[in-house]
Order: sequence, then C-alpha cells, then structure tokens
Amino acid sequence: MDFLADFLTRFVDKLQSPTLGFLIGGMVIAALNSRLAIPDAVYKFIVFMLLLKVGLSGGIAIRNANLAEMLLPAVFAAVIGILVVFIARNTLARLPGVKPLDAIATGGLFGAVSGSTLAAGITMLESEGMQYEAWAGALYPFMDIPALVTAIVLASIYAGKQKRDKYLKNEDYLRKGEYSGMQPVAAGGYSSEPGGIAGGSASQSGGPANNRVKIWPIVKDSLQGSALSALILGLALGIFTRPESVYESFYNPLFRGLLSILMLVMGMEAWARIGELRKVAQWYAVYAFVAPLLHGLIGFGLGYIAHIATGFSPGGGVILAVIAASSSDISGPPTLRGGIPKANPSAYIGASTAVGTPVALAVGIPLYIGLAQALMGGG
Amino acid sequence: MDFLADFLTRFVDKLQSPTLGFLIGGMVIAALNSRLAIPDAVYKFIVFMLLLKVGLSGGIAIRNANLAEMLLPAVFAAVIGILVVFIARNTLARLPGVKPLDAIATGGLFGAVSGSTLAAGITMLESEGMQYEAWAGALYPFMDIPALVTAIVLASIYAGKQKRDKYLKNEDYLRKGEYSGMQPVAAGGYSSEPGGIAGGSASQSGGPANNRVKIWPIVKDSLQGSALSALILGLALGIFTRPESVYESFYNPLFRGLLSILMLVMGMEAWARIGELRKVAQWYAVYAFVAPLLHGLIGFGLGYIAHIATGFSPGGGVILAVIAASSSDISGPPTLRGGIPKANPSAYIGASTAVGTPVALAVGIPLYIGLAQALMGGG
Amino acid sequence: MDFLADFLTRFVDKLQSPTLGFLIGGMVIAALNSRLAIPDAVYKFIVFMLLLKVGLSGGIAIRNANLAEMLLPAVFAAVIGILVVFIARNTLARLPGVKPLDAIATGGLFGAVSGSTLAAGITMLESEGMQYEAWAGALYPFMDIPALVTAIVLASIYAGKQKRDKYLKNEDYLRKGEYSGMQPVAAGGYSSEPGGIAGGSASQSGGPANNRVKIWPIVKDSLQGSALSALILGLALGIFTRPESVYESFYNPLFRGLLSILMLVMGMEAWARIGELRKVAQWYAVYAFVAPLLHGLIGFGLGYIAHIATGFSPGGGVILAVIAASSSDISGPPTLRGGIPKANPSAYIGASTAVGTPVALAVGIPLYIGLAQALMGGG
Repeated sequence: MDFLADFLTRFVDKLQSPTLGFLIGGMVIAALNSRLAIPDAVYKFIVFMLLLKVGLSGGIAIRNANLAEMLLPAVFAAVIGILVVFIARNTLARLPGVKPLDAIATGGLFGAVSGSTLAAGITMLESEGMQYEAWAGALYPFMDIPALVTAIVLASIYAGKQKRDKYLKNEDYLRKGEYSGMQPVAAGGYSSEPGGIAGGSASQSGGPANNRVKIWPIVKDSLQGSALSALILGLALGIFTRPESVYESFYNPLFRGLLSILMLVMGMEAWARIGELRKVAQWYAVYAFVAPLLHGLIGFGLGYIAHIATGFSPGGGVILAVIAASSSDISGPPTLRGGIPKANPSAYIGASTAVGTPVALAVGIPLYIGLAQALMGGG
Repeated sequence: MDFLADFLTRFVDKLQSPTLGFLIGGMVIAALNSRLAIPDAVYKFIVFMLLLKVGLSGGIAIRNANLAEMLLPAVFAAVIGILVVFIARNTLARLPGVKPLDAIATGGLFGAVSGSTLAAGITMLESEGMQYEAWAGALYPFMDIPALVTAIVLASIYAGKQKRDKYLKNEDYLRKGEYSGMQPVAAGGYSSEPGGIAGGSASQSGGPANNRVKIWPIVKDSLQGSALSALILGLALGIFTRPESVYESFYNPLFRGLLSILMLVMGMEAWARIGELRKVAQWYAVYAFVAPLLHGLIGFGLGYIAHIATGFSPGGGVILAVIAASSSDISGPPTLRGGIPKANPSAYIGASTAVGTPVALAVGIPLYIGLAQALMGGG
Repeated sequence: MDFLADFLTRFVDKLQSPTLGFLIGGMVIAALNSRLAIPDAVYKFIVFMLLLKVGLSGGIAIRNANLAEMLLPAVFAAVIGILVVFIARNTLARLPGVKPLDAIATGGLFGAVSGSTLAAGITMLESEGMQYEAWAGALYPFMDIPALVTAIVLASIYAGKQKRDKYLKNEDYLRKGEYSGMQPVAAGGYSSEPGGIAGGSASQSGGPANNRVKIWPIVKDSLQGSALSALILGLALGIFTRPESVYESFYNPLFRGLLSILMLVMGMEAWARIGELRKVAQWYAVYAFVAPLLHGLIGFGLGYIAHIATGFSPGGGVILAVIAASSSDISGPPTLRGGIPKANPSAYIGASTAVGTPVALAVGIPLYIGLAQALMGGG
C-alpha cells in the first residue's frame, strides 16, 4: 500500500510538472475547439533548437568524459539503447491493433534517458552511501542517442517496406506526392522523412523487382533528415568545438521553455488522435509497466559483468540500470516528433509519463539498489 | 504648477521608456518608408508568448492568493474591470467621429491594470506608513483579465451587429471572404476574429431573418480565438499546474524584450493609421484625463464598502483605487492587438501612455491616499 | 618561429570558438546533403535581432560617451571606417577574378570592429601599464557603423551600375522581376535590396538616357533597406531612449546564441558557393594579411595627429590603431548578409576569421604598442 501511495503521489506530481501540464493544456485547448496555433516556421525552429541542445549537451558530456576508463560501460549503454528499441519492435509492435510506428517510437522513448530519473537515482544512491564513478552520469548520451537513432531508422525501414508492399499490390498507386503512409500524416510535422524518404530510397535500391529493402540508403536518409541532422550536428559541435559559452547562455536556458511550447503543440495533436488508442491502451499500459523493470534488469546485468570484468563499482551498476529503466521526457519527444512524425504522441508520451516514469522511480530504483547491495556488496 | 512640472517630468520619462521608445521608433521607421518588417509567423508567435505570460502570471498570483479572505475585493475588482469597458462603450464610443472599435479597445486598456502604476502606488503607501493586506497586489488579475475579455467580446458583438446591418441593407454584399468590416483590416493582424467570426456566429444565430444578435455564440467565439485562448490557457496553467520554473526561466525574462518588438510593429501600424485620429484626438485626450480619476473613485468607493463590510484595510482600498485608475501598458496592448485587430493602436496606446498613465500617477495616487486618510483613518 | 607558433595557436583556438565552430558545422552539414534548414521567417527575424542589438549597443555607447572630448578621435574613427571600404573597393575588387560585391563586403568586414580584438588590445595595454582615455573603447561604433553603411551603399551603387550597363546593351533584358544581378541570388537572403532597389533607383534617376548613376537615391534606398533600417533604428533607440533594461535582459543575452544560428546558415551557404573562390583565394589571403597592418598604421597615424593636436593619449592612439586593424566577426556578418545578400560569405568571413583576425592579434597589437612607446613615449 505504501508503494501504491508513493506511486500515486508521484503520478499527481507529474501531472503538475510544466512538461505534462502544457501537454494536457494543449489537449484541453484542442478539445474546446480553440483556434490557437503555433506558426509552422516557429514550430520547426523550436524542434531544431531542442534537438541541437540535446546533441550539444551529449557532445559536451562525451568530450569531458574519461573515454578510456568508461569504455566498457559506454558500449554496454549503447547496446542497451539499441536493444530496447528492438525489444519494442518485436513485442509491443506485434500486439493486435498496435500500430508499428507508434510502438517503435515508444521503444525509442523508453530507450532514451530521463535526466530527472537519473538525478533521482543518484540522490538515492548518495543517501544510501553507495560509491559510484564520477563519470557514471555521463553514460547517458551513449544510451540516449543510439536509442533515438535506432528508433528513427527502424521506423524508416518499416515505412519503406510498407510502401513497397503497397507498390507491389497496386503499381498505379505510387503517384508522386500522393502516398502518405499507413497513418495519417501528422499535421504540422517537422518533416515527413520516414514515409517520403524511405520511399525514395526503396526505389533507388531496385524498386519492385528487388524484393529486399536495402538498409544503408534508409539509414543514410534518416541521418540526413532534419531531426537526426540537428541532433548529430549538436553532438559533433559538442565534441569537437568548445560551445560551452553559447550552450550555457542560450541553448540550455531556452530549453525548458521551448519544450513547454512543443508540449502544447503535441497536446493539441494528441487530442486529435487519442481515439486511435482506445482499443489498444491496455497494451501500452502493460508494456509501460513491464518495460522499465526489464530494461533496468538488463542494465543491471551488464553492469554486473562490467563489475566483474573491470571493477565497475556497484553504484555505477545501479546508475546503468536506472538510465536503462528510465524513459525520456526531455530529449525523446522532440526527436521522435521530428524523426517519426507519423507516430502518435498520445501513445509514446502517454505510456512514458503516465506509467513508465513512475514505475522506474517508485519500483526500479529501490530494486536495483537492493540488488546491488545483495549481489555486489555495495554500500 | 508643481503638479504640471511633475506631470511633464513623468511624461518625458515615459517617452524614454523602452515600451514607448520602441513604439515611437516604429512610427519613425514607417514615416521614413523603411522596408523593415517582422515576419508574420514570428509576429504571431510573439503575441502568443506575451499573452501566455500574462495569463501565467495572473494564474500563479491567483493560485498563491488566499481566495476566501480576498473574495469580496476580488469580486469588486472584476466588477470594476467590466464596468470600465461598458463606460467607454457608452461614452467615448458614442462621441462624434470616434470609431466604436477604437473606443472599446481604449476602454479595455483603461480597465486592464498597469503593474508599474501599481508598484508606484504601493511604494507611496509604504512611504506614508499605511497598512495594507499582503495579498492586495494579487487583486490585479481579477480586474485585468475580465476587462480585456469584456472588451474583446463587446468588440465582437459590435462587429457582428455592423455586419448584420450591412447584410440587411445589401444582401449581395456578403460574399464569402470579401467582407472586411467598417475599418480597414489591420495589416499583419494576429487574427481577424471579431469581424470574420462574429459574422459566422451572426449567421448561425439566425441570419437576416432574426433581428437580434445572439450573445453566447459570439462570446464563445471570442474565447476560442487565438488571443483569448492563449490568455486563458496561461491562466489555467498558472492556477492548476506548477509552471513557476518555466515561467521564471523563460516566459518572464523574455517578456519585456518581446514586448519591445511588438511595440515596434504597433508603432509602424500606428503611423499608417494616425490620420484617422486627427479629427477626434481631443475626445481621446478628454477621456484619458477624466477616466483614470473616475475609475479610481469607483474603485475607492467599492473599497470603502469592503472596508465597512469585511474590514478591508484603508491601504487595500487605495490599492483597489490605484489599479482601477491605472491603464495597462503591458498586458493590454498584445491582448487587444490580438483580440481586436481592427482597432487603431494609435488611439488606445496613445490615450493610455500619453495622458492616462501620467494622470493616474501624478493626480490619482495622492488623491486616493488623501481620501483614505480622511475617510478611513488609514496611516 | 615564436610568432608562427603564436599565430597557429590562435588559429586553432578560433576554429573551436562557437562562432567559427557553427560556421564549419554548417559547411559540413551542407557537404553531407543534410535536409536541415532554418525557416526563412525565423532566419529573417534572427538577422533583425542581431542588427538591432548591434545598433543598440553602439547607440548606448555613444550616449554615454563624452562627445565633446572625443570629437576628433571619433571623426578619425569614422574616416578610417569609410576609407577601409574604399581601399578594398580600389584594390581587392579590381584584382583579376575577384567579384566586386565580395570584395566590397570584405572591405566592410575589415572596416567594422571586432569587440574581442579590442578587448585583447586593452588587456595588453594594461599589462604594459600604458594609460588611455576611459572613453577610448567607445570609439568603436564611430568606425563600425560608417564602415558597414559605406559597404552596403558602395554595393548598391555597383549593382546599380551593373544593371544600367546591362540595360544599355540589351534593352529587352530588363523585364520586371527577371533581373537577378551578376551573382546568383543568395538563397534565403534577408532582402535583395542592392540589386532590386538600385535598379529602381537607377531608372528613377533618368534611365538609359542619363549615363551617370545618381548617388543619393541609392544611398536613401540602402538606408531604407531592412538591414540598415534595423541597424540605424537600434542606434537611434540607443542614443535617444533608455533601452538599457531591455538591452541587458533580452537583446544582449540572446545575441551570441542567435549569431551561432546565423553562422550555421552562412556555413551552409558558404559550402554551396566555396567553388567560386577557388581561383581567387590567394588574393583574399594576401589582402587579409596586409589589410589589418595597413589599416592599423592609418589608425596609428591619425591617433598620432590627435596626440599632437589635442593631447590624445598614446594608449588611446593604440586603441584607435587596434580597432582599425580589427575585422568584425560579430556585427559584420549579419549586417553584410542582410545588406549585401549576393556577396559570398565564404569570401569575407573566411578572409577575416582565418587570416585577418589572427594577424591583427599576433602582429598588429604588439606593433602598435611598440610604435607608441617609441614615438609618443607612452608607458
């Protein structure tokens, strides 16, 4: 009962956070038929700003990290980020009625990392007196960015396959500009890469005669899209230049505010598309409850391997588990909105903020700390 | 003579404030035929940001206020806000040559509250050693927002009536999209709600056969417009969620700067339309001199009733009078620009900043403090 | 060898600065065929914000300066700013293969002032213990703004002449809207003033019958363009109003961040146009090496005249030389991008940041300090 009360307290707190508050505000505004709208040019620029900031902060963290020492945990973090998306692709996406693009985006969000869940985990580690490597917090971009890139690429591959299947069934169908994918095109989407681009790539890679989708053109096309371009540009600028001054004075302080506006826009769209989820909401609830615990245990297992192999600390193992269990409410939404515009934000944001994050906080963190103390003798 | 010198000093100070400086800068730029322009998408976004901030700050103030204790003064504040607009509607708007939409917008601005006049009033109260309730400053959104909403609704009702009258005179006239109201459509307007929308509502409410304008569809339509939607969304987010972090780090610090850009745009437009005012400027001058004193006395009277009924302090009564006397140079312009785009900003901003605010500061505040000390024994 | 090592260190440091980092990032993004783009409305607004800030900071510096005392050095600063552009117009612009608009823009950038070079100069003066007037730093807008205005006006005159020459050769050519100048129109340019406007002015000034270009209509047209309008508006607001609060809270803090985005856009464009420079890069390298030293010596000479005529301090003379030697990486790029959109940013930014600024820092500053100590006995 204590757990339930804790869970509900965190849930209500979340509802009042600016992030979720603006999302719900956007839904209410849309439900009341308001004519409020964010101009498309401004919206696209906001997404660009958010993604550049996510990339910059990851790049700066990597530049300042001791790469040699953190090599194995960093590789494990990247493996987890990629694996989480493939798990969603092969579980949630195959459930009856669940749209694969929605499921892939949800997997991307659960693979990405929540800074606030990470902070909660570190706080609890310290109150338990467990030691951890100072650079353990810098593992997050190694998981965050691979997860988001994997999700966008898998979505492009899926959309490309869909298009080719349609093409084979009806050759007349594929008239230029008419095709709009399985899902309705997201209104005001930052870009229509997955559908439009993967189509182009599929035809480059041989068209209807060749029955296999070539992967590399789709990956390349995803990376050239505006969402991943901005993310990777920020990452590269963070690693190779010294953007700290402009990051601290501009990109970082504007981030939360611009995110609140993005949340408003996503709330308006979520309302318009919430009906799509009515019949499959239970699958998202189950996934969002089980996934953080499963991902966290994978993270804990790999942390344990690193503990044995290289003496990675028990506290570091807990941090790896916590970032694996967390789902992003910051870097994820803008990236997925830009990179998989056809995925329904009601699905992935709803699953993450309403269930996934409270479970990771209230169940996950205490579980991993207890396991570490039992198995690795931390504390 | 002292009063005149004081008045002139404040007037010249005002001219150098960023708000008025940018307004005049915009007028000069327009007069010199510059091709400088703020892109429409950015302009709309700036108005959205300003209105959301006005709503948020009002909502946060209301959430933190002791509603039970301040109930009567808050109701009085709302009554004053609404009343001020009706006074303008039935005096200024009926003077010869004055355009009713300009007069209604002016009434809205004089009903709305100026934070700097309020601050000046509180400073003077404290230097007089008068006591006042700590929450008295939080009365401002209860007057500010009703005044602005009333002005926009009255403008919509007026525009709806105008359109129906025209329609009855000339049924062929009302071709789709052609009608543009009595006043020229404001260039680059945030939205054309009053005209366009009220028309739609008027025809919903029975069209030419029914000779009465139905009020509710117009009110609903005004509330769904982008201006009031943003204002009320901000208010609701301020009351029901905890947006303080994003308010303090984003909406509040950007406010003055974005307002300066809006002022520039309004200055450019004001120059283009200043000729409209040449024949009626004296009416605005008279209104702007008398109105702050009249509104302040109404506020003082209601504060006196609250003093007798519930023990509202004399200092609180002065604050109610000061916010009634003040006219908004912050929340008002963007809201009216968004909600009544056909009203001429030269009229309402000119009346408020050039005459109304100096009168409220130099005449109003000392008058109400003197009255309070004489009648209620404050100090 | 010490000098070369110093030069190279500064060069590598520059490459990691946010300004140049984002420029190179934009080039890389463009080279990789990314579809990342900044919406045009946002881009235009960013240029407006940057130019208004440059004008505001100049205007505030002038308002706070002791104009009577600094009259002669200020006049000298303006003379240098204008002269530098005319030097480029009559040297670099006449070299084989160099496009005159690129050369004029480069001259404008070398005439404008770099705040960081100025700061480096002041720091070195202080470490040498040389005295200088407290207002000497405020000389920069007197050189900066005349140089940029001169460059834009000379570009307009050149474009107007080009157009008239074409017109005389082929009267049919000049169909409305078709003419696009010698250079390809800059993609996403803030405005196409020089070409379009100078044409209009040229025909006002007599058309083909009159074989001389009238200067005043072109100057007036340049000043009415969006770039110089924003710059001069900011200057006037800085001088005549008190925009410090909004400058400190809005325009100044946003400047570096918005500049980084402009640099990204200019990098993307620079990549697309870098091929134009292949055959003339050596001329830019020679100009960028010689020009800072020549300009600095002119500044030093005029400072020496002021020293003899009015007792201007030796340190002040060094500061005049340093701002003459410096080339702008802050105020220049947005102004030139807005005012001479057809000029190739690879030319002027490349020349300034890759060669000009390191030369001014590593060669210029020590040279002028040594000269001052030898000739004027400073220190």
